[in-house]
Amino acid sequence: MDPIERLTNLFVKFPGIGPRQAGRFVQYLLRSSPALRRELTEAIRELSGSVKQCTRCFRFSAADGKVCATCANPARDVFTLAVVASDADLAALERSGTYRGLYFVLGGTISLASEKMEGLRLKQLLDSLPSRIERGLSEVILAFPANPEGDATAMRVREELDRGLPSDTHIKVTALGRGLSTGSELEYADSDTIAQALGNRH
Amino acid sequence: MDPIERLTNLFVKFPGIGPRQAGRFVQYLLRSSPALRRELTEAIRELSGSVKQCTRCFRFSAADGKVCATCANPARDVFTLAVVASDADLAALERSGTYRGLYFVLGGTISLASEKMEGLRLKQLLDSLPSRIERGLSEVILAFPANPEGDATAMRVREELDRGLPSDTHIKVTALGRGLSTGSELEYADSDTIAQALGNRH
Amino acid sequence: MDPIERLTNLFVKFPGIGPRQAGRFVQYLLRSSPALRRELTEAIRELSGSVKQCTRCFRFSAADGKVCATCANPARDVFTLAVVASDADLAALERSGTYRGLYFVLGGTISLASEKMEGLRLKQLLDSLPSRIERGLSEVILAFPANPEGDATAMRVREELDRGLPSDTHIKVTALGRGLSTGSELEYADSDTIAQALGNRH
Amino acid sequence: MDPIERLTNLFVKFPGIGPRQAGRFVQYLLRSSPALRRELTEAIRELSGSVKQCTRCFRFSAADGKVCATCANPARDVFTLAVVASDADLAALERSGTYRGLYFVLGGTISLASEKMEGLRLKQLLDSLPSRIERGLSEVILAFPANPEGDATAMRVREELDRGLPSDTHIKVTALGRGLSTGSELEYADSDTIAQALGNRH
Repeated sequence: MDPIERLTNLFVKFPGIGPRQAGRFVQYLLRSSPALRRELTEAIRELSGSVKQCTRCFRFSAADGKVCATCANPARDVFTLAVVASDADLAALERSGTYRGLYFVLGGTISLASEKMEGLRLKQLLDSLPSRIERGLSEVILAFPANPEGDATAMRVREELDRGLPSDTHIKVTALGRGLSTGSELEYADSDTIAQALGNRH
Repeated sequence: MDPIERLTNLFVKFPGIGPRQAGRFVQYLLRSSPALRRELTEAIRELSGSVKQCTRCFRFSAADGKVCATCANPARDVFTLAVVASDADLAALERSGTYRGLYFVLGGTISLASEKMEGLRLKQLLDSLPSRIERGLSEVILAFPANPEGDATAMRVREELDRGLPSDTHIKVTALGRGLSTGSELEYADSDTIAQALGNRH
Repeated sequence: MDPIERLTNLFVKFPGIGPRQAGRFVQYLLRSSPALRRELTEAIRELSGSVKQCTRCFRFSAADGKVCATCANPARDVFTLAVVASDADLAALERSGTYRGLYFVLGGTISLASEKMEGLRLKQLLDSLPSRIERGLSEVILAFPANPEGDATAMRVREELDRGLPSDTHIKVTALGRGLSTGSELEYADSDTIAQALGNRH
Repeated sequence: MDPIERLTNLFVKFPGIGPRQAGRFVQYLLRSSPALRRELTEAIRELSGSVKQCTRCFRFSAADGKVCATCANPARDVFTLAVVASDADLAALERSGTYRGLYFVLGGTISLASEKMEGLRLKQLLDSLPSRIERGLSEVILAFPANPEGDATAMRVREELDRGLPSDTHIKVTALGRGLSTGSELEYADSDTIAQALGNRH
């Protein structure tokens, strides 16, 4: 196959990229300097080399050891564990600047079609809890998206935690607050959001 | 002035309508039957005749008496009063189907430019509270939009309630819950919303 | 029915207006002065009274006589006649500031579903041509939208003109130019537009 | 620098890609198989190796020789030459399926800020014309975008062609047709487009 076509087909697999933008990426690279193209191939190769999945929270990062910088950071509070669906959601919580606890990346949400937990790291989460509890864990925050998949995932994780944890452990399991998101007007809010905002008034 | 132009200029004042759409409204009316145009003028005239502002909550409605159907409804619970900015926000809360209390329409939010409460019915709200408390009111819900104007209004209303209510009244003043709105994904949520969702976890 | 609901239902029939915006129109009128509401009903009533359909071009206007200001204007050139689908399209041509000829409003385009010419003033167009030709008409411009309905309408009008005009009349029948519209980039133009732009290069 | 951050920064330079989507590209690659990452680096490297700029039309392609497949194709007609701004515009003309002539990629349009022709291959275009004329060229089509930059570029290229061509050559210089683009309605067309559509009626 033509190298232009071949590279276009690879870019089409990128999230959110259609054939037209894929073609523009290739044109951009064609017009770029050989040095930039070399830098790009090296940066991609480096992902394979130096990026590892943290053995504790399962996010990807370029940490030196087996554990990512956040998990290794003694300043993070060990009392709360936020269970998130993806690295991107973890990054969103970090960006908010208010969370100081630890993370666990579940690896996705339940697909409503299959209701399967397949590929989600539920066993790894449960296995990690005893040692986390020993170190002080007292709250698991289910930080999933506010959609049916996220809700179904939260329900299943709650069930598994109820079943999997020794009955004498007193871990609080919480979920992110629902309600009006910043900037939203009542007039245009959907009824479910308003019902949640009323239910969670304080 | 040309009647087409005259009517176009009146439609331009309608909320969200520019000159082009105003022109299409006029064209629509020109092509309509005389009967429909007559129906429209009668419906507008009827607003002046039969629509009244409720003397209790200050919404507009076509109630027979001085008080709107909601305020007059003995099945509504008298323990909660939702203070809203506008009739449209009142309608949004009603649509959600979960609120059974009463309403008070403040008539707007504070403009951040002027910080004036001008035109807002704050005095009327305060004046109505003693009799509402007598009938059982125990919670005032500040149901304002989740934006800076709504937040500033809530702050001012809280101050006025603190100052205006006798010190021995035990009215709880609450606000709508903030957090992830239904359907929103963590990855795309703004940091303030995530911080609120974390703070209001439960 | 409740007058608020009744008026909302009438606004919902306006072009491009949904129930939510219709409700905001009613709220706007409720908050307006009685004087403004009266002005509005009078302006609508005036449409029935003083607005007439021009007996020559069939547009609606508030002309004093039977003929609209454009048809009555001796400065307009009588050599060209633009046949348009609607008053709005006529207004668009006037806004462009380059057309100095006369107009004929056909009253719509062919519906592709029915292929019917029903309701279109084709007979009136043909009947008006002999006297227009006598006064100097030499070109009929088919100024229809650049979509399948517009194209089908142009085709049918051409056929009728071929059949309906005496064989010794030499009227040129033209159509608006097709090609790149101002501001459009080749890269994003659809293939049909590019083909037209190539075919109409000059 | 962290390899994740380093690669994100490189993706941010891609056309139309912001930091958030760049981050999602990196996450996608992290979750991909090593084989796919290897395929991607090889495809990028291949661009440097096998993709060449055609010495005749200056587009990039993976042709074996010095000349691209289109320039080398004896079935293309040698009478017309479309001068385009970019490879993407060339591709748009090819997609339209109606153009059978040859191309020349100028390499951009004039920047209105600088009015400079810098970086545009105007000299190369002029130098190539004598041999093209010898082989039969009779029309140069200026196929630039329908915006001020495209118009300014067309004007300058016309001037240079007038000056640069021997006075006895009879090359027609044309531009793409302007007017209503396919699908557009008169009512929403801008005045300049309507003026062009009227001027180019046929």
